[in-house]
Amino acid sequence: MIRHAAFDVLPWGLRETSLDVDLLAQTESVFALANGHIGWRGNLDEGEPHGLPGSYLNGVYETRPLPYAEAGYGYPESGQSMINVTDGKLIRVLVDDEPFDVRYGELRAHQRELDFRTGILTRTAEWAAPTGRAIRIRSQRLVSFSQRAIAAVCYDVEPVGGPIRVVVQSELVANQPMPQTSKDPRGGAGLDQPLVPDRSAVSGNRVNMVHYTKGSGLRVSVAMEHDISAPVELDINSEYGENLGRTTVCAVLRPGERLRLVKYVAYGWSERRSTPGLRAQVDAALVAARQTGWDGLCAEQAEFLKEFWDRADVELDGDPQVQQAVRFGLFHVLQAGARAERRAIPAKGLTGSGYDGHSFWDSEIFALPVFTYTLPDAARNALLWRYDILPQAQDRAKELGLNGAAFPWRTISGAECSAYWPAGTGAFHINADIADAVIRYLDATDDEDFAQGPGRDLLIHTARLWMSLGHDTDEGFRIDGVTGPDEYSAIADNNVYTNLMAKRNLLAAAEKATGTDTDVTAEEIASWRRAAERIVIPYDERRRVHPQSEGFTDHQLWDFAAMTQDDYPLLLRYPYFDLYRKQVVKQADLVLAMYLAGDEFTDEQKARNFAYYEALTVRDSSLSACVQAVLAAEVGHADLARAYLDEAALMDLDDLEHNTRDGLHIASLAGAWLALVAGFGGMRHRPGDPLAFAPILPPGMTRLAFRVFFKGRLLNVEITADSATYTLLEGKPIELTHHGETRTLDTGQPISAPIPTRPKIPAPTQPPGREPHQR
Amino acid sequence: MIRHAAFDVLPWGLRETSLDVDLLAQTESVFALANGHIGWRGNLDEGEPHGLPGSYLNGVYETRPLPYAEAGYGYPESGQSMINVTDGKLIRVLVDDEPFDVRYGELRAHQRELDFRTGILTRTAEWAAPTGRAIRIRSQRLVSFSQRAIAAVCYDVEPVGGPIRVVVQSELVANQPMPQTSKDPRGGAGLDQPLVPDRSAVSGNRVNMVHYTKGSGLRVSVAMEHDISAPVELDINSEYGENLGRTTVCAVLRPGERLRLVKYVAYGWSERRSTPGLRAQVDAALVAARQTGWDGLCAEQAEFLKEFWDRADVELDGDPQVQQAVRFGLFHVLQAGARAERRAIPAKGLTGSGYDGHSFWDSEIFALPVFTYTLPDAARNALLWRYDILPQAQDRAKELGLNGAAFPWRTISGAECSAYWPAGTGAFHINADIADAVIRYLDATDDEDFAQGPGRDLLIHTARLWMSLGHDTDEGFRIDGVTGPDEYSAIADNNVYTNLMAKRNLLAAAEKATGTDTDVTAEEIASWRRAAERIVIPYDERRRVHPQSEGFTDHQLWDFAAMTQDDYPLLLRYPYFDLYRKQVVKQADLVLAMYLAGDEFTDEQKARNFAYYEALTVRDSSLSACVQAVLAAEVGHADLARAYLDEAALMDLDDLEHNTRDGLHIASLAGAWLALVAGFGGMRHRPGDPLAFAPILPPGMTRLAFRVFFKGRLLNVEITADSATYTLLEGKPIELTHHGETRTLDTGQPISAPIPTRPKIPAPTQPPGREPHQR
Repeated sequence: MIRHAAFDVLPWGLRETSLDVDLLAQTESVFALANGHIGWRGNLDEGEPHGLPGSYLNGVYETRPLPYAEAGYGYPESGQSMINVTDGKLIRVLVDDEPFDVRYGELRAHQRELDFRTGILTRTAEWAAPTGRAIRIRSQRLVSFSQRAIAAVCYDVEPVGGPIRVVVQSELVANQPMPQTSKDPRGGAGLDQPLVPDRSAVSGNRVNMVHYTKGSGLRVSVAMEHDISAPVELDINSEYGENLGRTTVCAVLRPGERLRLVKYVAYGWSERRSTPGLRAQVDAALVAARQTGWDGLCAEQAEFLKEFWDRADVELDGDPQVQQAVRFGLFHVLQAGARAERRAIPAKGLTGSGYDGHSFWDSEIFALPVFTYTLPDAARNALLWRYDILPQAQDRAKELGLNGAAFPWRTISGAECSAYWPAGTGAFHINADIADAVIRYLDATDDEDFAQGPGRDLLIHTARLWMSLGHDTDEGFRIDGVTGPDEYSAIADNNVYTNLMAKRNLLAAAEKATGTDTDVTAEEIASWRRAAERIVIPYDERRRVHPQSEGFTDHQLWDFAAMTQDDYPLLLRYPYFDLYRKQVVKQADLVLAMYLAGDEFTDEQKARNFAYYEALTVRDSSLSACVQAVLAAEVGHADLARAYLDEAALMDLDDLEHNTRDGLHIASLAGAWLALVAGFGGMRHRPGDPLAFAPILPPGMTRLAFRVFFKGRLLNVEITADSATYTLLEGKPIELTHHGETRTLDTGQPISAPIPTRPKIPAPTQPPGREPHQR
Repeated sequence: MIRHAAFDVLPWGLRETSLDVDLLAQTESVFALANGHIGWRGNLDEGEPHGLPGSYLNGVYETRPLPYAEAGYGYPESGQSMINVTDGKLIRVLVDDEPFDVRYGELRAHQRELDFRTGILTRTAEWAAPTGRAIRIRSQRLVSFSQRAIAAVCYDVEPVGGPIRVVVQSELVANQPMPQTSKDPRGGAGLDQPLVPDRSAVSGNRVNMVHYTKGSGLRVSVAMEHDISAPVELDINSEYGENLGRTTVCAVLRPGERLRLVKYVAYGWSERRSTPGLRAQVDAALVAARQTGWDGLCAEQAEFLKEFWDRADVELDGDPQVQQAVRFGLFHVLQAGARAERRAIPAKGLTGSGYDGHSFWDSEIFALPVFTYTLPDAARNALLWRYDILPQAQDRAKELGLNGAAFPWRTISGAECSAYWPAGTGAFHINADIADAVIRYLDATDDEDFAQGPGRDLLIHTARLWMSLGHDTDEGFRIDGVTGPDEYSAIADNNVYTNLMAKRNLLAAAEKATGTDTDVTAEEIASWRRAAERIVIPYDERRRVHPQSEGFTDHQLWDFAAMTQDDYPLLLRYPYFDLYRKQVVKQADLVLAMYLAGDEFTDEQKARNFAYYEALTVRDSSLSACVQAVLAAEVGHADLARAYLDEAALMDLDDLEHNTRDGLHIASLAGAWLALVAGFGGMRHRPGDPLAFAPILPPGMTRLAFRVFFKGRLLNVEITADSATYTLLEGKPIELTHHGETRTLDTGQPISAPIPTRPKIPAPTQPPGREPHQR
């Protein structure tokens, strides 16, 4: 375990009590602030030292050529990399003639704390320059949930021990030098100097800088302005260059005199708007923020978060560390999607440049369920982004010789950016994943506008894809040569996950298209239903398990006994050809199918399948533990479920995959919520049926409580060792089931029900060394 | 058909009677001269105009980085491209003050003729400069079979109509500017300026130039010297620069006076030898050649070819064009491998830079059978090259986590150069293909030295590969996740071809390793036999055909009806994902298995399988038609076999794949011989059994005769409509079978036997538009 020794365990925050320069990249990720539109990594105010400087705008990327030593038809020629945009976080301090830099002089105290209820990152430090002159600083930073274009810093500096002359430089810096990127394919491309200066200007002390990207043709504007106060005379002045905007404040302070600088930063970008138009938009946002003021922004932030936590909080008694991790996770999931507003939710949110800032199925299968049941507007907006890129997905389908829509495996703007087709284009399940998120959202919200428009269109076009991708045979409707969720297999026939999710997609499309004014004919609808009914689900009669794809269980077993810890993740040490042809599973695939399409399996099949795949799954993906937690809980392995819950929740705080430096694992953090709600809460949502619960208390805990927003109702579910209590906090009466028994829940009439005891059964084993992470 | 209109049909040569500048690249390939060590494309002496300048040395390449947008473990990082070495062909003429250039002035006559019996390319031309001054030139060129390091040109020039002053410049040019390469993945990388000047010198009129390659570290030396004669006074002088060596001859000639310049060019290269050592080697070769003289070189060349044709000639009465094409093909196969001597036989020989000059399985499965039965030393030498790179293949196996040897799918020096693993590293059958060539060579020659050394080692290490690649299960020994010959499928389980060839490999290794002093234990040998016996051969009971790999016949049929001619080759218009998941076959795969492992199939299976795959095979590979010809003949479709024979034989003369410009299709040219000998001759060679024949006359022909050199005997087989006659031309009596009946053949006692008539059966169909090429 490489948990940061200096992290305090707090119920509502994350506090680091001393600075470890070697862990900066990791802490920059966990202390990142974002609102879904702007992302600021937790870089130190003064910019250096840093792990990875990062300021991001959702959707701002540069293109880069994708090279192929042997090209093939339909390979994408151009990739996209999220870029580090103009850094508005920077505040540098000169103490007499010495720059404040924690690497020099004496850092007497340093603390950072992220508060999940205020949304503010607070940093305090006391530092003595090599000359002995000392200062105390306190910096508070927020990326506003209420004012989407705004981030702000409140920076205080005061002398300690004696008077000093301080020069504070508050900057906007474009094209920051970036550290060398690693060769790990999961990192980002780290483009150098991506911003071309367009126009910068100073008006009074407001600095506005506009840049554009050469390849992708996006225009980015950043502006800053300050409220500066001190009980002494101040010298203030602003300047700008091509890549630098700067406001300089100079003051002589005595002990007890504090200089406060509130920095308002506004960001905007556009593919279409002109430079003057974009500047005006950003200047206007800045004026509004300054009028609101620092205290006003903080109040709005706290209010937004209070509303969120009222709907979304999860309480866990008995393990403060996991309690903290779960709230940490929810806070970061919120930051990834709260104000994305028709932009993608990238795999790393806006916390780092890992995976080039691309969005994958992580969004629909891991993050959107959390939003759907807590902040459904964010789910709606994320799905509207998919709707916006539907034309590109239709073009891609055409390019591939298919009908309907083929959504990109990884993208920022909608174009396929996967340069390795067996694990990219081949992963057609993304289309069913999007449909699954649509189906869930529609039923959870009864959002008729969405159902009649974007939702229906997304279902129809993905259904059409399956009809052209699959083919009917005597034995049923087959989907051959695709890659399922498990990336240690590829290009296989009748992947059970893909086929079951396609079935769900086809049936939902049939239902939503029936009797509407679309171009879908009754014959087409009938063909969808027929394909869904006839879809092939391979089953290995001899082993009495489902092969994750046809023939999978006939493959050679991976030689797990020969592996050492250094061999993992296997993809960095073994060739794909070897992984693909053996029984070794990177991440839940068939097990995920048993969660999302659980009705298609008997209880006995679930138990046998779970045990079978448990012995093969190495969890080289952060998307796996949470799903295994859900199924472990369902089939009766509560201890194992608990272990996987912890792993999913602590993925980044404990840096379990050693790449938190590149950004947080948003899917795993959302997955911790799934592990709790779908796993221990046993929540299953089957459109048309009452919401189902089958709660059990996580081992080692004394209480679990969570909230679910569903069809306009806010439910509270509280689980103890013996019983579960359901309370309706908002909305009209609603039916639910508790361990299979249907009950109607009404306001003021909580329902308590006993939790059935289950026989203790032997837990399945994992590959040696790949047991759930031990804390 | 795009047959060159100006090609004459000759029995023993190829003659072009007028020059078409637009077809230069294609004719440079068909008129290429090579001896397996040196290759000179048929470029015009004066260098321009050209399609693709080309002078090659077998094994001389430069490395280039192989880029991957998404890298993976075990991907080769460095590729190899055969380079255009110093051009020694160049002879330029200045006619008064006008350079001889066929694009200007008036080309009154132009003829080129390649003679398959002399091995000489003769060119004659009469050209008038724009000024009206005219010359006649005659150039003869050879690349010596007898003196491996030597190529030579005999160049005559004389005035027509009036006196002229001619300046002849005979040159060596390094780093020739190369035309832009196309994006077709089957072309070559075309590295620019690959040669770094090392040392050049002139001694008398001998010019020697040494260059080296930066990445691969190879040193190349080229030298030239001339015998010059004319009935007038000559001014001769030689000079050199970094990339140019030049001998200039100046003379005033009157009509009837001829200037003759015999140019001797010697080539050498080495990875290890020093510059002085290499220079000395090349200078020495030059001295020897000059002592032999032009006439001597021509005599040696004719003698070498006479010996070859005495062993290898194929006579076909009834279709002069195919007769010509078959001899053309044999001549070029000979040129590719005659003096390769422990170097590879590249897919294009040394006729062009297609496929980067790489060697594939083409060598072992298509070219080596021809050599084995006609010039077995060339087969031995080619297999010794495989033996030389065995250590690299063992390292590659280790890198891939396998035992034994994993030979590269494509390479020049032995390192894997395939940058797309599903169709490269995944094509493990190459190892069985090499074993197959070893087995064939050993039994055809009874070469005990080879059997006890390199042959046995090759068999043992490839056998070990299969043991680690496959795994034993209840149903048998499986080999999962590999790519068979058909490149429109990939990464499939139990490819029938691969499994049957692996079986053959394992059994041969067991036989050759038994009772020897190798490190192979009796247990290991037993395990090979067990795996071979238990190897899984999938069979589709419902369709009563063999799926080429497990599950193949369940896949969707390619929509052949929707294709137009422009859609082919499909790989340039359809993504791999689509090709891989459907029933569409690029090239013979299961059909090839039925040829090379024919004993494993019943006659009925062969007929049914052949018809089934015939309907799926689009022949987007030049390796297919010849194999289809063999099986068509066997299962009773003589007309179809004839059509495929013609296609294989005319592949380059008719430029059927539109890329003869990049070099000749050596495998298809060798395949024409296979179509005749294994197809119409019905020759099957099963070690231990008498050589088997089942001759039938090709429809439309009146006689087919071919020769086979086997176990020290030279057999002649002559086929007419009614009977076949076997004659033993050399060696002791030998058994053979004729249509299943065993006979003993002795010198002076030819055996004639009737050819059984077969019932006419309906021919299978091909995908629409993919019928055999119509002449």
